[in-house]
Amino acid sequence: MKAVRTDLKMADGRTIYYFDQSPQIRNAVDKREVEERPELGQMRLDVLTNEWISMAAHRQTRAFLPPKELCPLCPTKPGLDTEIADSNYQVVVFENRSPSFANPNGAFTLAQYANLKTPVLSAAGHCEVICFTDHHEGCFGQLPLSQIRLVMEAWRDRVKEISKMPYVQHIAPFENRGEEVGVTLNHPHGQIYAYPFIPPRTEKMVAIAEQYLASNARPLISDVIERELKDEVRIIAQNDHWLAYVPFASRYPYEIHVSPKSFVPDLAELSDEQADAYPEIAKEVLLRLDGVFGIEMAYIAAWHQAPVRSARKSFGLHWQITSIRRQPGKLKYLAGSESALGAFIMDMKPEQSAEQLRAVKL
Amino acid sequence: MKAVRTDLKMADGRTIYYFDQSPQIRNAVDKREVEERPELGQMRLDVLTNEWISMAAHRQTRAFLPPKELCPLCPTKPGLDTEIADSNYQVVVFENRSPSFANPNGAFTLAQYANLKTPVLSAAGHCEVICFTDHHEGCFGQLPLSQIRLVMEAWRDRVKEISKMPYVQHIAPFENRGEEVGVTLNHPHGQIYAYPFIPPRTEKMVAIAEQYLASNARPLISDVIERELKDEVRIIAQNDHWLAYVPFASRYPYEIHVSPKSFVPDLAELSDEQADAYPEIAKEVLLRLDGVFGIEMAYIAAWHQAPVRSARKSFGLHWQITSIRRQPGKLKYLAGSESALGAFIMDMKPEQSAEQLRAVKL
Repeated sequence: MKAVRTDLKMADGRTIYYFDQSPQIRNAVDKREVEERPELGQMRLDVLTNEWISMAAHRQTRAFLPPKELCPLCPTKPGLDTEIADSNYQVVVFENRSPSFANPNGAFTLAQYANLKTPVLSAAGHCEVICFTDHHEGCFGQLPLSQIRLVMEAWRDRVKEISKMPYVQHIAPFENRGEEVGVTLNHPHGQIYAYPFIPPRTEKMVAIAEQYLASNARPLISDVIERELKDEVRIIAQNDHWLAYVPFASRYPYEIHVSPKSFVPDLAELSDEQADAYPEIAKEVLLRLDGVFGIEMAYIAAWHQAPVRSARKSFGLHWQITSIRRQPGKLKYLAGSESALGAFIMDMKPEQSAEQLRAVKL
Repeated sequence: MKAVRTDLKMADGRTIYYFDQSPQIRNAVDKREVEERPELGQMRLDVLTNEWISMAAHRQTRAFLPPKELCPLCPTKPGLDTEIADSNYQVVVFENRSPSFANPNGAFTLAQYANLKTPVLSAAGHCEVICFTDHHEGCFGQLPLSQIRLVMEAWRDRVKEISKMPYVQHIAPFENRGEEVGVTLNHPHGQIYAYPFIPPRTEKMVAIAEQYLASNARPLISDVIERELKDEVRIIAQNDHWLAYVPFASRYPYEIHVSPKSFVPDLAELSDEQADAYPEIAKEVLLRLDGVFGIEMAYIAAWHQAPVRSARKSFGLHWQITSIRRQPGKLKYLAGSESALGAFIMDMKPEQSAEQLRAVKL
């Protein structure tokens, strides 16, 4: 599949990218009054952990669960001018209106980030919103396969392009689904966060992956996949190009990793065959997740990629879905042990949740 | 203050420790039917992060928000046999009925933990429950000062004693407050988790603290406190021995650190003067937190201590209180960026929350 991308300007200067499965006329003008763009946020160094915390005070006022009639991610219709000026779309991507990271206009170099003696820096980076469909109802897992394929094409395009921004070190496309994980807009959408540093969890995984490659001459993720294929009991679904499994040491009641069977560092480097084989496994996994309790499961689905400029041969792309729901009426909370100490306690064996997920009738 | 401790056996063999401000007759017998103790859980290594995940399947069935009349942490009364056999108590501590970590009966050595090629180990360690008061209503911050002092004495005692267990590497007393952070019992209580490994967040802080001490010949936390005293704007409260402040790079809308002004590695090594000065600052900080919105704030309050056997001169004790409430009707959720990547985004400047906390009329 080759998607067609049309770039238009929004009223306040942001760019919106329309992705279509075939050429469409996309020329709708954003007629909204021009609002001033928020100021670039700040990053502060937590010296106890050497981690950067982004401070985006302008996000306090962002939209919070507006009713469907006021959804800013629906297409524009009479009486409602939304983020998307057209009256319909397939997939669109645009810069977040209240971005946690934004273009520093030259005032930022990656070298500054490495200097831990500078306790405050601009929150340089880039944050985009990706709307999976122009239908307000529904969800990613219920989209037609061709629509999921188009989303994948948009992700590949955006990762390739954002990778060129000189102040970006790491890119993470993710989706938060459900008010239980803090979703503020119900319209099916995801986000693409591009950081000026390698985020803490990624940094740790990168160090381990690099060390593993040096010692074993193989990427760690390839051996993880080999173990899962051998153990079998935690596999949820697979096809020629992808494997979906509950990881051996999962942290959440329902956690699924979906990994390409052949090593690839990021979405931009997926082959067309790998990209083509993604929609069916993505759909199956998400429908199985909703099937466990017969309710829409709140989840976080995040793409773990190699950083833009490092660990390209050691860190393997994988899609991690974690759900905090452990029973229909119960959530797993990150309390003292998880939140303050970082030590996860699981109430369920991974083999048990894998069995439940496999047993769902689709 | 010298607390009096009385040790009694519970029906299933666990020990209960009564802490009293003055000698009391404590001989109530636990008359409940003997239930079998759950099996020792399992720890699995997540090879992508080299972190241990504890699997405690027996915790699935633990009590979940029972009504007040059935509270297992209230004293025993006619018709209700609780965890505490006596009809009253001041502060009690006992081993968790569904512990995430427990005595491995010799089947575990710390050396095993260091071998990352062993992917499964017993969840050796120790988990205790500490009841702050025998009153079901109320909360830690509303206790009389002398009662908070008694809790501190129980913490010091338990940390000193648990430190002797040969399979314990790290001890963390913490309190989860509020159903928003997953509290399953409303009775004012905390937990003491003792791990057979140094938990991931602590391990990272330890490495940084050790490096800082080696380079600067001063503990990092001492310089943090000096900066906070100099900057002033983030200070919430202080007395001769303790400083309470919103950290320079806080992760949560309301985050407060309470640190001894003189370096001390853990609760067991606090001087009597430091312990005596804790209740007033603890109470003030927690009442200010509840005062911001005039509602009971959900929080996690955790003691960060030096590990039992390492970093004793570099890692300084501090009490970290984090609240996920950002507005009366809104919580901060750990979504994609925080949960999957470990990168925190803050909607508010620390100076702003410090000002709000200081402005609360007590």
